[in-house]
Amino acid sequence: MSVLNNTDEQIKPVPVMELYLFGENTLEKHHITSTSQISQYITQPYKLWLNVCGLDNAPILQDIAKIFSIHPLTLEDIQNTNQRPKLEEFDEFVFITAKMIFTKSGLEEIITEHISLLFGHHFIISFQEKPDDIFDAIRVRLENPSGKMRKLGTDYFTYTLLDMVVDQYYKLIELIGERNEVLEDGIIGDNKNIKLADIYLHRKALQDIRKSTWPLREILSAWKKSDHPFIKKKTSVFINDIYEHTVEILESLELQRETITSLVEIYMTHLSIKQNEVMKTLTIIATIFIPLTFIAGIYGMNFKVMPELEWKYSYPLIWIIFITTTIAMLYYFKKKRWF
Amino acid sequence: MSVLNNTDEQIKPVPVMELYLFGENTLEKHHITSTSQISQYITQPYKLWLNVCGLDNAPILQDIAKIFSIHPLTLEDIQNTNQRPKLEEFDEFVFITAKMIFTKSGLEEIITEHISLLFGHHFIISFQEKPDDIFDAIRVRLENPSGKMRKLGTDYFTYTLLDMVVDQYYKLIELIGERNEVLEDGIIGDNKNIKLADIYLHRKALQDIRKSTWPLREILSAWKKSDHPFIKKKTSVFINDIYEHTVEILESLELQRETITSLVEIYMTHLSIKQNEVMKTLTIIATIFIPLTFIAGIYGMNFKVMPELEWKYSYPLIWIIFITTTIAMLYYFKKKRWF
Amino acid sequence: MSVLNNTDEQIKPVPVMELYLFGENTLEKHHITSTSQISQYITQPYKLWLNVCGLDNAPILQDIAKIFSIHPLTLEDIQNTNQRPKLEEFDEFVFITAKMIFTKSGLEEIITEHISLLFGHHFIISFQEKPDDIFDAIRVRLENPSGKMRKLGTDYFTYTLLDMVVDQYYKLIELIGERNEVLEDGIIGDNKNIKLADIYLHRKALQDIRKSTWPLREILSAWKKSDHPFIKKKTSVFINDIYEHTVEILESLELQRETITSLVEIYMTHLSIKQNEVMKTLTIIATIFIPLTFIAGIYGMNFKVMPELEWKYSYPLIWIIFITTTIAMLYYFKKKRWF
Amino acid sequence: MSVLNNTDEQIKPVPVMELYLFGENTLEKHHITSTSQISQYITQPYKLWLNVCGLDNAPILQDIAKIFSIHPLTLEDIQNTNQRPKLEEFDEFVFITAKMIFTKSGLEEIITEHISLLFGHHFIISFQEKPDDIFDAIRVRLENPSGKMRKLGTDYFTYTLLDMVVDQYYKLIELIGERNEVLEDGIIGDNKNIKLADIYLHRKALQDIRKSTWPLREILSAWKKSDHPFIKKKTSVFINDIYEHTVEILESLELQRETITSLVEIYMTHLSIKQNEVMKTLTIIATIFIPLTFIAGIYGMNFKVMPELEWKYSYPLIWIIFITTTIAMLYYFKKKRWF
Amino acid sequence: MSVLNNTDEQIKPVPVMELYLFGENTLEKHHITSTSQISQYITQPYKLWLNVCGLDNAPILQDIAKIFSIHPLTLEDIQNTNQRPKLEEFDEFVFITAKMIFTKSGLEEIITEHISLLFGHHFIISFQEKPDDIFDAIRVRLENPSGKMRKLGTDYFTYTLLDMVVDQYYKLIELIGERNEVLEDGIIGDNKNIKLADIYLHRKALQDIRKSTWPLREILSAWKKSDHPFIKKKTSVFINDIYEHTVEILESLELQRETITSLVEIYMTHLSIKQNEVMKTLTIIATIFIPLTFIAGIYGMNFKVMPELEWKYSYPLIWIIFITTTIAMLYYFKKKRWF
Repeated sequence: MSVLNNTDEQIKPVPVMELYLFGENTLEKHHITSTSQISQYITQPYKLWLNVCGLDNAPILQDIAKIFSIHPLTLEDIQNTNQRPKLEEFDEFVFITAKMIFTKSGLEEIITEHISLLFGHHFIISFQEKPDDIFDAIRVRLENPSGKMRKLGTDYFTYTLLDMVVDQYYKLIELIGERNEVLEDGIIGDNKNIKLADIYLHRKALQDIRKSTWPLREILSAWKKSDHPFIKKKTSVFINDIYEHTVEILESLELQRETITSLVEIYMTHLSIKQNEVMKTLTIIATIFIPLTFIAGIYGMNFKVMPELEWKYSYPLIWIIFITTTIAMLYYFKKKRWF
Repeated sequence: MSVLNNTDEQIKPVPVMELYLFGENTLEKHHITSTSQISQYITQPYKLWLNVCGLDNAPILQDIAKIFSIHPLTLEDIQNTNQRPKLEEFDEFVFITAKMIFTKSGLEEIITEHISLLFGHHFIISFQEKPDDIFDAIRVRLENPSGKMRKLGTDYFTYTLLDMVVDQYYKLIELIGERNEVLEDGIIGDNKNIKLADIYLHRKALQDIRKSTWPLREILSAWKKSDHPFIKKKTSVFINDIYEHTVEILESLELQRETITSLVEIYMTHLSIKQNEVMKTLTIIATIFIPLTFIAGIYGMNFKVMPELEWKYSYPLIWIIFITTTIAMLYYFKKKRWF
Repeated sequence: MSVLNNTDEQIKPVPVMELYLFGENTLEKHHITSTSQISQYITQPYKLWLNVCGLDNAPILQDIAKIFSIHPLTLEDIQNTNQRPKLEEFDEFVFITAKMIFTKSGLEEIITEHISLLFGHHFIISFQEKPDDIFDAIRVRLENPSGKMRKLGTDYFTYTLLDMVVDQYYKLIELIGERNEVLEDGIIGDNKNIKLADIYLHRKALQDIRKSTWPLREILSAWKKSDHPFIKKKTSVFINDIYEHTVEILESLELQRETITSLVEIYMTHLSIKQNEVMKTLTIIATIFIPLTFIAGIYGMNFKVMPELEWKYSYPLIWIIFITTTIAMLYYFKKKRWF
Repeated sequence: MSVLNNTDEQIKPVPVMELYLFGENTLEKHHITSTSQISQYITQPYKLWLNVCGLDNAPILQDIAKIFSIHPLTLEDIQNTNQRPKLEEFDEFVFITAKMIFTKSGLEEIITEHISLLFGHHFIISFQEKPDDIFDAIRVRLENPSGKMRKLGTDYFTYTLLDMVVDQYYKLIELIGERNEVLEDGIIGDNKNIKLADIYLHRKALQDIRKSTWPLREILSAWKKSDHPFIKKKTSVFINDIYEHTVEILESLELQRETITSLVEIYMTHLSIKQNEVMKTLTIIATIFIPLTFIAGIYGMNFKVMPELEWKYSYPLIWIIFITTTIAMLYYFKKKRWF
Repeated sequence: MSVLNNTDEQIKPVPVMELYLFGENTLEKHHITSTSQISQYITQPYKLWLNVCGLDNAPILQDIAKIFSIHPLTLEDIQNTNQRPKLEEFDEFVFITAKMIFTKSGLEEIITEHISLLFGHHFIISFQEKPDDIFDAIRVRLENPSGKMRKLGTDYFTYTLLDMVVDQYYKLIELIGERNEVLEDGIIGDNKNIKLADIYLHRKALQDIRKSTWPLREILSAWKKSDHPFIKKKTSVFINDIYEHTVEILESLELQRETITSLVEIYMTHLSIKQNEVMKTLTIIATIFIPLTFIAGIYGMNFKVMPELEWKYSYPLIWIIFITTTIAMLYYFKKKRWF
């Protein structure tokens, strides 16, 4: 997987970059258009949050990598949107890459974005695929001079970013729970509008979310056990909290998966029950009328010598045969509990 | 998951609070209406049990949190009724949050309540969602001056509260076992009243209970391994006992889950067997009478030249054909063991 | 789970108690009718086996508990016939509780009994639910003065008791294996006498045995790892032996469970195959004769103007049509490999 | 499980015993008929391989046990052909018991034999059920004076015996793989000759082999970790090799099990597809002709007043109705993609 | 498994061998035709990569083994194309054997090749089955004098070879993902062209890849934990990267396996739904027309005395009966929601 060496790329759009300088008494926001600006701000005695939105312009990302001395393989992880979530510790920073899964409208439009977070002694860098993000609440909280985000270290800052990410998972879980109930009502209530494809796609959405959540748990577990100097004891209670949330999300997903499995089973059984009913109807009708039709057929024959045809009471007699046969059949089916 | 910062809430009902002061020779019960009362009792040289019923009034809960120096994240866990059960150790107290699952009437009305227990050196606090609880036996046992509840530490007291909670699980398990037997009798005895939805809902109830029991086991396991100063060796035998109960509950749930799975399988197979029977009935009748009807149809044709029609013994002959064909068919089905 | 405090019980039958005093040169058997007798024998310089059959009379059991200083929770475990098997170590003795599963006639009548074993420095106590037990071989071996039971410690004695219990599991496994073969022959040989309920109940019996065996393995594993002073190195080879037996029993159960699962699958498939056959028969007959009947029906119509009716060779012609149609159909079915 | 004490047995056949004395320069082969001979050879300064074929004659086995000081429980493990494979270390020797599974003709005749291997400082004993064995290659290699078998220790010798055993598993796996392909071709190619019972028995054979292989892996794993003085570092590379083979066998078995499971699934689905086809044929024929027959039936009625019967063009008209109805039906089925 | 001793083999083709001598300033490529050439180059002060393509000529491989002092069992692992992937550490070198899985055209032609890699202090040897390989990119990168391949150690070189191998897995995974989508579209869109055999073979391909990937992960995990002197810290970041790739491949495979399982389920359910539809069509038609045909049959009887036949309005009346019966039936089916 060597994505790095392709230097001959076309001109790609410059990523949208915003840079916050902040301390207990300071908060400055700068829009960055060239990487040289970053080098300039990095020397100032404040903490720095660089939010980079857009991963297509390799040269600019490489410049940023040089400024913060990011290893080429790590840069590759940042750029590779298929990268599995993980946490890696380096001397200069801690590197986290994860998946943001969120929706703006509903389950039909789940957006999955690759996000990378790096935090060093006094800087945090976040890389996202697109400018449109879920960090507005962060920006608001950053404006509060007495808030923890300004006072505590870069690890706490990174925690709040991760917390935003995990919160979005929660919201999805809730939406999935609601959809599950719709499916449940539809299947148990035998609503015709439930389509198999719906269940299939629903199950697939669950799978996707689980695929991203599982390594998230590993990341947080690694953080909990880490003794990296930039990870302070003070934030451990927060990390524990977010860790439990991922555990809860995973358990919910597991439960919902089981629920879907039983729903599919119910669906199949419903089909069998209905088919059984259809077959019974056919069988009852056919079993009663086919023999009767045969009897009628007999006396529709044109043989010259058929004594019954001449008898006076043949016709009422045959009606008695028709009716008693029918009653006997119905009694038999009743006894067999077919209806 | 930041539930804390919403300070602008409407006026919420004050929780129902009762406070017990007790020692080997003392037992006082107070109804608390304002949090200032608590501060007053806390200084007295007795052990204190504060039972708070109602989690909606955030300011009052925050006052209590301040009095007992409860961390905001822990308070959040107390208020968040979706919080996953867990045990956390702090310097000042041990914090446990769990699910109370109980029923007053039957399996139709399972009540799930979020409960939090905190015990420090000389106090126990229990937070419940609603005043209506399962702790009446505790109140009675507390009145016994020579009982262990008065003599032993706050960890033993918390154990008895947890024991009450686990006892309710046991009762549910029994009810579920009974329901299982009803379903079993219904399905094996081929009773028509068993509905698929019943099985589905039954299985879902099992899932819910298991979801709450699993972390309960983890809590008790953590307690067993804990060396927190408030957790004394003396209570370890009791905790072991309750731990085994949760293990037993989980095993029972697992067994009942397997039982339901085989029941569904049996149900499906019953359906297939019945369908087979229906099909055989149809096939036997149709296979016998359709050819006969054809034969009768032949001699119902109105061709001018049909020599058989003129013969004298055609009619008895055709009856012989009818009867031998039928006997041959029946013999064939008998040989195939269709009935 | 507080079963202890109900002191107001009705008079319950006194348990059947037998007491053996034994040493290398001594063997005395006493029938105990009151607990005071036990206190008297306990002081003698012999090893002592007290076998208590019957758990209903709480006061007597409490007396015994006092004599041997058994903790109330342990006594509760002895009395609670739903107690999960376990091994607990105390200073004065090692406590084991398990399930005896045995049958006197066959798989129809599996008896499950709760059994508790306690061994101290010089005593063994066994508590059973009913007098009727599986320890006769023990009594015989005890009479052999040079046997290991007389020479070795109380741990070896307890081992032999447990060995008897596990032996009964073996016998059940064999019976289950035989039943499995009966089911297998029935299903593969397509014997009609196999009922679904049989398979279901068979599977349930497996579950029950497994439920009791699993913790037995844990008990023996705990014994193996134990460094309790009453558990001597010399018996470790025997415990290892019995431990392996439980492992083997569990593996056999697992295999038989898998076997049953595939049998059910075979059963279901057999049903489908048969249904397929039934359907084919119906379809062949109906597909051949329904069109023929229609043709016959055409010439049974009474239209005034139907030229064919007047023709001379209509009737033989129609027979040719009947026969060629039938042959064509049969050829088609043959080509489709329907028979 | 006390198989030992039954001393009153009938005279059982003496096992076939061969004894090899070997050193770097020596190789003697002796046929043993009485155990006293063994005692005589054991004192000689050579390594010794005693191969005992036949486990029925308890007294002779007990004599051998005495000569090599084998513990009664170990002897029981040697004799008990249901004994689970295991490795046990004693001061005087290492004891291994395993299952030989091999076939001389094909999968129809899999022979399972209980084999026990013991190796001490200068002796190896192998116990088999029957004289007919798989060790001929060993005998040949032993004759090579410069071979490792003559030079290296008893652990290497035992390794070669085990290697022979595992080799037979490999051959079985290959046969099973071939059979799998036959089943696969049969089911996917929709060959009628595949019977469900074949699949079932095939799956059962897999189970049996797995049951024996699993503990084999444990044995070799225990050997690898062992620091018994008779197990030398030099053989570790060989043991590692054989260990990997068992891992590979287990993985192959697992894969083949999965393959069979999907084959059964395919088989079931094929059944459903065929049934669907049968049903469609029936439905198409019946749906076309039953209404037509009804129409023909109408004009077969004998009412006096039926104006259509008198009309001149009734008959051609009714043919037009027949034909258009049929074409409409066929078009409908075509549109529904039924054929 | 002794493949070694068969010395009497026919003349096998000499493997294609290429040898690279390289240092920071040197790069020589030699085509080797006899093993004596190798001995000559090995003494030169450069690093050496020997690429051997073809495993059939045992004597030549044995010569190479002698030159590099490769253990006979290791040589066996190199030659045995069924060898399970593994990593083994020796004093002179580290040995890795793995499976190359790649395709040149598409999923129809997956090529699996056994590859073995050995790296010592200054040499790397790669053994492949066939000359046609995936290492062209390596050859190009080797020509770059300032590239890491020339500067870093033999472990880095081996890493790049392994990276090539794992890259091919990635490409396969992508192809499989695409195929999955084709199947998905086919099954959900109810496309008739999807054959069961396709799904089965697709699932089998997944199994095969997984079988090779799983041990690959173990190999890389072992490398990560290794403290062999030839494995330098500097390459650990690269190995970590490739390790994560295998984890990702395995997770993708797992996800795709689940997807296929649900697809098969959907397929089965589709079949059931269609069968249900077919049955309903048949039942509706039969249930309407069979009774009507019976009625028509009645009045086709030729009894002398049948008063209805004489009535004037019998015929219109019977039409009214026909039509109302049909409407009633259709209403009934509508109410049952059959269409």
